[in-house]
This record gives sequence, C-alpha cells and structure tokens, in this order.
Amino acid sequence: MSENGVLLKNKMNGSGLKGKALTRNGLHHVQVNGSLYPAKVKSRRQCWEVKPSDMAQNTLNPIRAIVDGMKLNPNPEKPMIALSIGDPTVFGNLPTDKVVLQAMKDAIDSQKFNGYAPSVGYLQSRQAVANFYSSPEAPLDAQDVILTSGCSQAIDLAISVLCNPGDNILVPCPGFSLYKTLAVSMGIEVKLYNLLPEKAWEVDLQHLESLIDENTSCIIVTNPSNPCGSVFTKEHLEKILKVASRHCVPILADEIYSDMVSHRQWTRHKTSVFPGCSSPSMASLSADVPILACGGLAKRWLVPGWRLGWILIHDRNNIFGSEIRQGLVKLSQRILGACTIVQGALESILNNTPPSFYSSTVSFLQSNSEICFNELSAVPGLTPIMPSGAMYIMVGIDMENFPDFKNDVDFTERLVTEQSVFCLPASAFEYPNYFRIVVTVPEEQMVEACGRIREFCLTHYRPRSRDSNDLDQ
Amino acid sequence: MSENGVLLKNKMNGSGLKGKALTRNGLHHVQVNGSLYPAKVKSRRQCWEVKPSDMAQNTLNPIRAIVDGMKLNPNPEKPMIALSIGDPTVFGNLPTDKVVLQAMKDAIDSQKFNGYAPSVGYLQSRQAVANFYSSPEAPLDAQDVILTSGCSQAIDLAISVLCNPGDNILVPCPGFSLYKTLAVSMGIEVKLYNLLPEKAWEVDLQHLESLIDENTSCIIVTNPSNPCGSVFTKEHLEKILKVASRHCVPILADEIYSDMVSHRQWTRHKTSVFPGCSSPSMASLSADVPILACGGLAKRWLVPGWRLGWILIHDRNNIFGSEIRQGLVKLSQRILGACTIVQGALESILNNTPPSFYSSTVSFLQSNSEICFNELSAVPGLTPIMPSGAMYIMVGIDMENFPDFKNDVDFTERLVTEQSVFCLPASAFEYPNYFRIVVTVPEEQMVEACGRIREFCLTHYRPRSRDSNDLDQ
Repeated sequence: MSENGVLLKNKMNGSGLKGKALTRNGLHHVQVNGSLYPAKVKSRRQCWEVKPSDMAQNTLNPIRAIVDGMKLNPNPEKPMIALSIGDPTVFGNLPTDKVVLQAMKDAIDSQKFNGYAPSVGYLQSRQAVANFYSSPEAPLDAQDVILTSGCSQAIDLAISVLCNPGDNILVPCPGFSLYKTLAVSMGIEVKLYNLLPEKAWEVDLQHLESLIDENTSCIIVTNPSNPCGSVFTKEHLEKILKVASRHCVPILADEIYSDMVSHRQWTRHKTSVFPGCSSPSMASLSADVPILACGGLAKRWLVPGWRLGWILIHDRNNIFGSEIRQGLVKLSQRILGACTIVQGALESILNNTPPSFYSSTVSFLQSNSEICFNELSAVPGLTPIMPSGAMYIMVGIDMENFPDFKNDVDFTERLVTEQSVFCLPASAFEYPNYFRIVVTVPEEQMVEACGRIREFCLTHYRPRSRDSNDLDQ
Repeated sequence: MSENGVLLKNKMNGSGLKGKALTRNGLHHVQVNGSLYPAKVKSRRQCWEVKPSDMAQNTLNPIRAIVDGMKLNPNPEKPMIALSIGDPTVFGNLPTDKVVLQAMKDAIDSQKFNGYAPSVGYLQSRQAVANFYSSPEAPLDAQDVILTSGCSQAIDLAISVLCNPGDNILVPCPGFSLYKTLAVSMGIEVKLYNLLPEKAWEVDLQHLESLIDENTSCIIVTNPSNPCGSVFTKEHLEKILKVASRHCVPILADEIYSDMVSHRQWTRHKTSVFPGCSSPSMASLSADVPILACGGLAKRWLVPGWRLGWILIHDRNNIFGSEIRQGLVKLSQRILGACTIVQGALESILNNTPPSFYSSTVSFLQSNSEICFNELSAVPGLTPIMPSGAMYIMVGIDMENFPDFKNDVDFTERLVTEQSVFCLPASAFEYPNYFRIVVTVPEEQMVEACGRIREFCLTHYRPRSRDSNDLDQ
C-alpha cells in the first residue's frame, strides 16, 4: 500500500493530469498521459434526469395492478380468509416433507455445495431430474436438463431463447400472468387463445390455430392449469400437439403442477407410465414437436420460496438441435441459476420423498376442491368449474344477476368489505366475470369461506326476471 | 372426470368441430362453436425451423469463449494447479463460518421460509442488510435494499433499470466480463475506460470523461477490482464521483469485494467508519450522485453458490426518485429473487459472523498476494501489480521478450502444457499481455505454482537485446 501511496501522491494530485489540446485528421484531440483522446465535442447532460428503462416501464404485473387498485377493507367483525395467494405454505397446513428438510441440512453439512455450480446446474442434480422425469416415450438425460432459479426463470429462459422482439407467442386465456409480463417487457407480442369453461377449460383448438402466423415462435400450454385447475386428457394434448406440428411451432409446456392431479396412482416406477392416469406430460405424447417443459420444486414439494426450477429439453427429432441448447446455456450464464444448497439436496429430495407425501397433498387438495365446488354449486349466481388438479378452482359470476357490482373486481372487493373473504378477480388472468379460489386453505376455513360467499351472494343476487318486482320490495 | 370425459366424447371428436366459412366486412371468417374467427389467410411455416433468439446469440461470455478455445493439456508429470477460477471455495481451505451454516439450518428448521418472499426480499432481511451497510454519510433503510439471486442478478437489474437499447455504459478495462455480457445481450453499447497499471489500476479519469455522451446511462465502478485486486483511495473515488456529477451520470458500484481489503480494521461498529481505512464505499463519499451499489454474500462470506445478492439504492438527492425504485421492483417481479432459506438466514449471518472470520480471510489473501507478488517480481519478463484487496493479482507479460508466444492466451496455454499451472489470460478481460492469478489457493500450492511459473519464464525468456546472439546457440 505504501508504495502505491507514494505513487499516488506524486502523480495523482489532480492538477498534474490536465490534457493538452491537439488537432489530428481535422478532429480535436486531447493528449493525456501520452495517449490521444477525442476532445469533448459530444453533447452531454447539463442536469440530472434519470428515467427507468422502457423494459422496466413495460414490466407489468396484471395481478399487482389489479390488487393494488382494490380497496381491501375487511369486515372487522370477521377474521380475514385470503383465498387469493397461490402459495401452498401460507396457512402452515401443508408443510413440506421431513425428507426434504433433512436433504437440505445434509447438503449444508457436507460443505460441498458452497461454491459456484455450472450455470446450468450440477451435473449430478441435472441427472437426478432427468431420471425422475424420464419415461420410455420421452427419455431424458442430464444434458436435457437445465436447472434454474425457480420455474419463473425457466419460463424466462425458454421464452428468451425462442423469441425475438416482434415475434408473438400464444398464451392460454385465462392463464398465468407471468407469460405476458415477461413477453411484453421483451417486446414480444402475446396472443391469447381461449380455454373453454364449458369443456373443463380445454383449448379452443380452432381459435388457437387461427392465431398462428409466421411470427409465432411458441405456444405456451399450462397443464395442469393455473388459474383453472384443469387437467387435459391425453387425447386433448395430442390435438394441441397436432396443431403445433402442422404449423411447426415449438411448445413451452408449463408443467409446474405436473402430477398434482386427482385420482393419480402415485408411483415412481415409470415402467407402467400413467396407468389409467389422465395427466401425461406433453413430451410423452409427441415424437416430432420440440418441447421445453418447465417445472420445479415449488408446488409439488411445497417450497416455492426455494427457487429451484428446471427446463426439460425434449427434442427427439433434433429440431432444436444444438443451437437452442447452446442458446439456453448462454442465457443461463447471465445471472446463474438456483441456490447450490437446494441443488445439492435435489437428488435426495427427488429420490427419497415418500409417495405418501405426494398423495396426501393431492388428497387434501381434491377434498377441498370438492367441498368448495359442492358448496358454491348451490349458490345462486355462481358457476364453479370442478378442477382436476393443481390447487385452484375458477368460479363464474352471473354478473347480470348481481346488479350491485360492475364487474368481478367490484364483486371480489365487496366480498372483502362485507365478508372478509379475498378471492382473486379473474380479470387478473384476462378473464372477467370469474374469480379464482386457492384451495390450499385448511378445511374449516374453506367451509367457513364458502358459507360467507353464499351469504354474500344471497344478499346481492337479484335475477333479471325479477327485476320488475324490485319496486315492490 | 367422467363427466368431462362424456363431454369430450360428444363434442370433441375432432370431426365435429370443422368451421363454416363466412364473409363479413369483406374478410373471410370461420364460424366455430358459434364464434367468428378470421380465416387462415396468414402465412405459416411449412417446415421446422427453430433458431435461438438474437438475445441468446448475443449473450457472449468472453471468458468461456477464450478458455473453450484453449488447448489445456497439463503436463502429466505435474499435478494441475488451477489459479484461474474466481471461486474461493474450490480448494477447501477457505470454508465459510460455522455461524453461517448454523443460520441456514435454523432457517430450515423454523419452516418459516418455505413460501414465496416478496419479489424484493423479506422486509426483515432487507432491514438487516440496511443496518449492516448503513453509515452516517450514507444511511440506508430497508426500502433502499433489494435482495437478488446473487450479485449477477443485482447487476442485471441495475443495468436493466438504467439503460435502454442504444444507450451506452462505461465499463472498466480490464474489468469483469459480465457487464459486457449482460449489456450487449440487451443492445446496450459498452465503452471501455482505461485503468492504469502504473497507478495501481486507478481510473484514467480524462479517458473516462472523454467517453461520456448524452447516451451514457451509467458508469460502472468495480472497487475492489476483479481482475486487478486494486482498491481505490477515498481521494480517487471522489474524483470519479466528480466526473459522474459533472455530467449527471449515475453510478453502478460493483462492491461485491467490499471490505475484502488489506490492513482493514475489521469492525462492525460503524461509529468510527473506516478508521484509517482505504476502502470507503462510493456512496459514503457523494451526496449528489445517485448510486446503485451491488453486493452479496458470495465473496466475503465465501458462499458464491448460494446466490444471495443485493442492490443498495443510494439517492440522497432524490434523483432516482420513486421511478427508478418502482422500476427495480417491477423488474424483480420477472423471476423473483434469492432462495428464501438464505434470506431467512441473512440477519443472523450478518449480525453473528465473528469479526475474526473476516479478518482471517483477508490476512490469508494478503499473505498469499505478497508471496505471489514477491516471487513473480523476481521473474524476468513478468511485472506483477501488487493488489490491495479482493482475491486477484494481475501480472504483466513482457511479450516482446517471450518470442515463443504470440500473446497472453498462447503464453498461458503453454504454461498449462509445460507446468500444469492455469492462469486466466487477461484477454478475457479485454486486456492483453497480462494474466490473472486467483490467490485463494493454499499457500504451498501458491509457492509451488510461482516456482513453476518462474521455471517456465526462465525457459522462454529471451530479451530482445540478445536476439542477435540467437544464431550462436
């Protein structure tokens, strides 16, 4: 330090470094320390003016935009029940398994997982994911797996590698809002394809197909669905794949809720894949359509905060080829991926979590869904759609028979004011006149919440046919 | 499910959904299920052609590009010593503190940190970072802290919020390659400003200033420096700040190596801030220049894989204002941030890690730096620059006196072939004719590596003045 200090005193006293003006090739230059630099002819800022980038301004979260605009003043006489948050851990009734926690502590104690991992994740952890999700129809190797900081980064990387600004992607409606948030911020157009509530939220295939043009760079399929809780049949998935195949559009399969499906035979032995099960992965059904399947620990293992996601690259016809794989690797180097402790625990988490853990989660969600569906089916003016998976139920509001409310946002806001029950208005999923209920709440609160929703609807339901009698009341 | 199944059989058998052609408003339409869609007049793809996006193709990692192009065949008679990797954990001689590990296990056992955190991090964890880094000159509150998935994401968010495509940023040369990787992938121009090896890598201020134009959206300052290991004095930092202030350009201060500085009085009591210390934060020296300071647990706590970084927002003159803060919040919602377990452990890590842990790390790095500097100073053809912090030392190669080698890449490649010592050629930092040594290696390997480098140089060193005698040999 002292040597440098002397050096500084001698040479860096500020006044000693003034430049000497020169002209060379007709341009003004300044000579500094023997080097020539262009003189300051450029326009500079005269005052502070720091604005956020277009990307920051264009990063819009519709859920936040809607919720932040709502006046949420619960009825002080009733304790709040929030059925709005897609986080299965908030009520404490759905803890992760002990095996999962122990795997984390073992990873910490080993002290083997403190350094940088490769940007796509430890090879051994990638292999563990490959083994877990590999099937004869859709085999996976470690090279086909990229570990990410949560499923959000998986989706971000998948969109980023497939799409340029000006491209468009096809996104389900109603659908998870993150696709649009990410795409719009990158200058990618979002085209919404309809899901059909009357067909258990299956894709309107003709509508989907009508939206495809030469700038369509991927179709996003969410199965099981957030916010619908729907699960596509094998036959329906095959029809979606046919559309993709016909127009040569790759698929981004958001399968974060995979295997969270009612009536599922929970088994890790994949020799008899999906025996009588209604939730195959998209990749297992197509040999030609290239698929980036996104998933993670968040929902099935009930640890969304840990930010461990993955992309499974399914490309049996070598359409992505090495280019897309290399593109994903390059993009993964921007900020690196998942926490190494969680990566280190991953193999044990996947291999040792008991099947009973998965099945009891699903049984609970199914039971709550049935309670909710049955209770709300009997409420005038509401049309719940029975889910088959994930952890949501969508409920239609017969808006014309609730003249007190302008729309679903108004409806759900008043439900908080009067009954202290908060459900997310489906406008947040670009699907007005519905609301979404998260069914992870403890059963007694589920029942209580449904009772309050019933009371609320009975208070405000005034079917049109009786409008003429209103004056008599 | 069975109800849906029946529904499907009746309505979704494929042939039943064929559209009926119609013309309305002069456009062809197809009627499907009672709705009208535009007929397929758009151009579609006829064959598979999936290419990675421009962004993926433009995400270039210069270190990978150079290292992957090198033929690294170590001498089988000598065990490999890799002095190339900026990861302090690889040799196992620098474990993190027990307090840090225990904090993680406590966070796991609490089961309080499994759900989603706010996208900018838990308030309590942000407050802990604010308390740790707050000083009277640069006070911080929880609102001024954004937690990120490693310092890489902090840098990514900071660049993303400040810069639009077409803007330029000023980046130190030699400097950490990630700035360019991120910026170029986003269409942001990188202008390199020179650091001066003869002045212990201080900034060439005139050069820095000459590069500023009206499209300059930030100046990145890395202090302490990777790859140089240099630490700026208070006076030099003030001069950099004056340039930024004069032209109204905000600063991105990459301070991931902050407090990893030789001769530092390690104390958490900040009442006497930096007593005789040469490494103040940039923010503590400026009341007007708005600064986004990026840091994290990676280096000082020796856990780079854990991906816990932060942005400290210093904006005492309210120049960023609420807009930049909101922009950062919005951008943080894209993929969310750090693993919640590490976030949950953060307060305890910051408050309870003993000062002796920090000081012993720095003592070790300083001792190894001195060994390396002293050994290589005596080697003909090499000019090591003594570092003052971080964990690196840069070594100049007198290329003209090593006629066997074309450049620094060639030099370091052959050093592997002959001596099994791998140093990163500084071309990876846009600074040819130097190489970087990481000084985290155990002392005996440091000594051994320096001996081998000496042997290598003695073998190949042929100063120009003796060229005429070459024919005599």
